[in-house]
Amino acid sequence: MEEDTGVLPRKESFSEWYNEVLWRAEIMDVRYPVKGLYVWYPHGFGIRKRAYGILRDLMDRDHAETMFPLLIPKTEFMKEAEHIKGFEDEVYWVTHGGTSELDVPLALRPTSETAIYPMYSLWIRSHTDLPLKLYQIVNTFRYETKHTRPLIRLREITSFKEAHTVHATWEEAAAQVEVALDLYKEFYDSLRVPVIISRRPNWDKFPGADYTIAVDTIMPDGKTLQIGTAHMLGDHFSRTYDITYEDANGERQYAYQTCYGISERSIAAVISIHGDDKGLVLPPEVAPIEVVIVPIIVGKRRDEVLAAAKGLEEELRNARFAVKLDDRDMRPGAKYYHWEMRGVPLRVEIGPRDIDANTVVAVTRTGKKITLDRRGVVEGVNSVLAEFGEEMGRAAHQAMADKIVVAATLEEAAAAVKTGVAVVHWCGSQECAEKIEAAVDASILGSDIRSDLITVSDGPCIACGGKGTSALVARTY
Amino acid sequence: MEEDTGVLPRKESFSEWYNEVLWRAEIMDVRYPVKGLYVWYPHGFGIRKRAYGILRDLMDRDHAETMFPLLIPKTEFMKEAEHIKGFEDEVYWVTHGGTSELDVPLALRPTSETAIYPMYSLWIRSHTDLPLKLYQIVNTFRYETKHTRPLIRLREITSFKEAHTVHATWEEAAAQVEVALDLYKEFYDSLRVPVIISRRPNWDKFPGADYTIAVDTIMPDGKTLQIGTAHMLGDHFSRTYDITYEDANGERQYAYQTCYGISERSIAAVISIHGDDKGLVLPPEVAPIEVVIVPIIVGKRRDEVLAAAKGLEEELRNARFAVKLDDRDMRPGAKYYHWEMRGVPLRVEIGPRDIDANTVVAVTRTGKKITLDRRGVVEGVNSVLAEFGEEMGRAAHQAMADKIVVAATLEEAAAAVKTGVAVVHWCGSQECAEKIEAAVDASILGSDIRSDLITVSDGPCIACGGKGTSALVARTY
Repeated sequence: MEEDTGVLPRKESFSEWYNEVLWRAEIMDVRYPVKGLYVWYPHGFGIRKRAYGILRDLMDRDHAETMFPLLIPKTEFMKEAEHIKGFEDEVYWVTHGGTSELDVPLALRPTSETAIYPMYSLWIRSHTDLPLKLYQIVNTFRYETKHTRPLIRLREITSFKEAHTVHATWEEAAAQVEVALDLYKEFYDSLRVPVIISRRPNWDKFPGADYTIAVDTIMPDGKTLQIGTAHMLGDHFSRTYDITYEDANGERQYAYQTCYGISERSIAAVISIHGDDKGLVLPPEVAPIEVVIVPIIVGKRRDEVLAAAKGLEEELRNARFAVKLDDRDMRPGAKYYHWEMRGVPLRVEIGPRDIDANTVVAVTRTGKKITLDRRGVVEGVNSVLAEFGEEMGRAAHQAMADKIVVAATLEEAAAAVKTGVAVVHWCGSQECAEKIEAAVDASILGSDIRSDLITVSDGPCIACGGKGTSALVARTY
Repeated sequence: MEEDTGVLPRKESFSEWYNEVLWRAEIMDVRYPVKGLYVWYPHGFGIRKRAYGILRDLMDRDHAETMFPLLIPKTEFMKEAEHIKGFEDEVYWVTHGGTSELDVPLALRPTSETAIYPMYSLWIRSHTDLPLKLYQIVNTFRYETKHTRPLIRLREITSFKEAHTVHATWEEAAAQVEVALDLYKEFYDSLRVPVIISRRPNWDKFPGADYTIAVDTIMPDGKTLQIGTAHMLGDHFSRTYDITYEDANGERQYAYQTCYGISERSIAAVISIHGDDKGLVLPPEVAPIEVVIVPIIVGKRRDEVLAAAKGLEEELRNARFAVKLDDRDMRPGAKYYHWEMRGVPLRVEIGPRDIDANTVVAVTRTGKKITLDRRGVVEGVNSVLAEFGEEMGRAAHQAMADKIVVAATLEEAAAAVKTGVAVVHWCGSQECAEKIEAAVDASILGSDIRSDLITVSDGPCIACGGKGTSALVARTY
């Protein structure tokens, strides 16, 4: 739309960089006239579309997709006491239809437990109906009073993938939470986003859950971003919404449930983890354009070069690459700038010299230049892209490893969280958590850590000296 | 979920049949505790998913996908006078966030012009930004006071595909309306749903449009269902929302716009047009399960039959069919009933005799039985499904042709609309439309008809005898 020619802030000024890259790379427009609501530009939505395609394929292996209504009657919403307490300040209420007041106000779902579980109560009769594993990708709403931020803290979460499962036993439900975490790990592996999985402290769990296990990544500024959660609901909701089944002995039992979700924070992570001073850097798996072809046009061989570029485009498209020929009447340098900002993994240049030599020049988004044989171009592009994706993964993994510091004292932890995450020993008590949080000026993120970046151990709590185990302390988004 | 063994009403009792088939075939659950809001069962959502996959591919040829917020501030919503008048009784209003009242009430979009066009005003600067062709697939809301009906008349339209285009001239915008109608025709061809395209009378056009052209189908009860619309907006909205561009001469011009939409009524049409007394009949293109394999198990050769069925499943899955092996411990007859109700296009039976003869038995949803060579089973299934789809298209076309009657008098028209649609000559005046509607007890649906089912001609208006042309009279959903 508007062509931008300005300069992006350096990525080390992360907050400014993030805000600027969102519009310069055409991810989100923040000028929509309501706080906390943003517009997806087509390029940003293209990333979302590919990423959620991956997520859908993962879910479809073992879940069925469905869709429940956005509007939840107040009467249903108010049934589960803990759950309401967690959300009551954040819910948008529809009170009028046309000019008349509604008899029962309707909540815009902040999450769908209270919409889905009354139906589960109708659907589940027998143990043969279990397990039930459904998911939906929908918009949800939170009346955020804190500072809002595109893709990260929103009033309309446009892309909430929420799964809701029902099981016969507590153990099966607990096992499903682990299955969910494996799926999420696999999802973020495709996005080349390194994650740390940990169990949230009890006071930070999902309202109404037995426990919550979360997936976090570390942003360039060292703050953690929660990019996925899995909740063990036990039988709290099944008792409230009367979700029971007849077991093999003909006895009625309460069911056990889980729910787990991922939002467009996943896209925020891709952008933030991989981007650089020139703009986005997209993993080939989620790039709306994987390859851009830039013809290098020299006066008299113009038609020949354009024809060669079109031939190349067609060949790559037939090989199922997301390819774009940029034949605009502009300097190549301006085109490079344009596509680098938008994160296109590979640029292929073709000019008279390449035609003569029967080659093309491939340049990755991070500047690696490879001359490819024109005849084997599909294989060549394929292997350059595969290697590029792998390299992105390694670089992101290293960058994240560099942000994790093992801290033996409160002072070391306080220093560590200025640029990353501290791993400390903690006894698990809320009292010590409060002491640590006050001294370090950061939060206890979680314990029971699963990450190939962190070696977990037992040791004395850094607050009380009692028996402790590894926990994460971080500033969080 | 609950296995049903009851009897479906005959399809000739269409309204009862429709209501029953929705839950027996697991399309929608109507028991959600808010009027006009329904829950997609996974099977129903599977049909939606495949149908909207086709629609997305069609749109992606020449449009970019995007997403705008659901909530529209009252201040923006109220800017276009005609548009508001069309929607003011139907809009849901969010008035509260948490326990506090909002400064500006927020409308749940009934359609997105007033959300999108303020952004278009920011995005469009120059003639080089045009044409702009975006679309989104979103939920929209109408506070319906009329009788609601799943997939047809909803308070939450869960699956609204709306496109919004901007052009330099009126002519280009008008041409885009035709492009949209061609796309929609192609979409419904894939769904084997015959359509009639016609121009709505002026008093029935989209609020704020120059004119509206609609896509209708005829339901089994003879009433028409509007399943797509394309609106020529002229410069009404661009003047209200200040959408201007600098032309090649450096002068500022108002842009011209179109919008066009399709909703889950498309799914209602597929269900209604093709279903029969046994349940759904799905075109292979949108069937979540294209082929169900039923092993015919006879005592001692049980393991052999199951292994053969699994081998067949794998081969068909590798050939990219949506295939399901039903190895439940049930009578084959109960399985047939189950999958027939859900519209699966092809059942493949394999038993001991088939193994011995190296064949399988394919039975189409409408009862055609074909013995296929086991070795060439992929080609065999492919050709049976292709032929089945073609046959569905021909049958639907014939059924719709039978419902269209050319009527030379008001009496003939009144008789025709009892079971279908009347084609009459009409002068185009509102006065005559009212006379015709009163006499026939049906509505003037449209003129300027495009359909291979109807031959258009000029002739005397059946109300006033003046110069007229072909128009449709119908009872409508």
